[in-house]
Amino acid sequence: MILLSTSSGKRTSPLLVVEDSNEDFEVLQRFLKRSSMTVPIQRCVNGEQALAFLYRTGSYRDQDYMSRPVLIVLDLNLPGTDGREVLRRIKQDDNLKTIPVIVFTTSSNPKDIEECYQYGANSYIVKPIDFAQLKRDIQVLVDYWFEVAVLPDQPKN
Amino acid sequence: MILLSTSSGKRTSPLLVVEDSNEDFEVLQRFLKRSSMTVPIQRCVNGEQALAFLYRTGSYRDQDYMSRPVLIVLDLNLPGTDGREVLRRIKQDDNLKTIPVIVFTTSSNPKDIEECYQYGANSYIVKPIDFAQLKRDIQVLVDYWFEVAVLPDQPKN
Repeated sequence: MILLSTSSGKRTSPLLVVEDSNEDFEVLQRFLKRSSMTVPIQRCVNGEQALAFLYRTGSYRDQDYMSRPVLIVLDLNLPGTDGREVLRRIKQDDNLKTIPVIVFTTSSNPKDIEECYQYGANSYIVKPIDFAQLKRDIQVLVDYWFEVAVLPDQPKN
Repeated sequence: MILLSTSSGKRTSPLLVVEDSNEDFEVLQRFLKRSSMTVPIQRCVNGEQALAFLYRTGSYRDQDYMSRPVLIVLDLNLPGTDGREVLRRIKQDDNLKTIPVIVFTTSSNPKDIEECYQYGANSYIVKPIDFAQLKRDIQVLVDYWFEVAVLPDQPKN
């Protein structure tokens, strides 16, 4: 997990990345940091941790300084509670469902693509194997979601 | 409406643009054509026409050559059945809900943004007033949805 404390005490609204592979996360993080994105990155390594973070339970119970994510990048194949279940839980929750969820996975199986859009995924990206392509895709993702699209407001607490 | 016949008899899967303003549609169409997008554009001028197109009713009953859209760009403020209702209908229909819907509107009202994401809009874009910005936004939209993201398969008929 990347710690996100703010010296001003202001709440930070992170991009949540749910990714079990350290290698994949490091590459994603490197390209996100090289992009124009300015929001902090929060990582969860599996589905249970992602749900605990979203519902502020378990080890996230007292982490009041952190707002809910502005956007979620979700791997599908995770140990334990997998990405499909995390997606389903988010999109069935009236409070969480407005957070855009981008499925980001190695699976190009049409069944997975169809199922994720059925569950309410906002979009679906197959991780490119080629590094140059991955870097470009991440820049387009950042440009699209942080500069072109409008994200829902953080709810007042 | 832009007619989309194919000489090969192959079905075409268009980008559906639901926009009542001729001026706004013409600008959008011009920039879409200048982008790298290769799919044809289908326009509907109001909500009733969009639903008739999606359900192949009314004047669209016999238009078998045309597949359902790969993506929908939806204005919110339309005469009669407005964009909110079209969005709600699409996202409550198990067959249509997998089509990504991008709300594209002049409204930057947080209530509209929240409501559209609640209804299941895949993303929400506030139309830029500045032409250079609009051109750039449309190129990023095309890059994102047609080159980075994976769209669901067209169902077999």
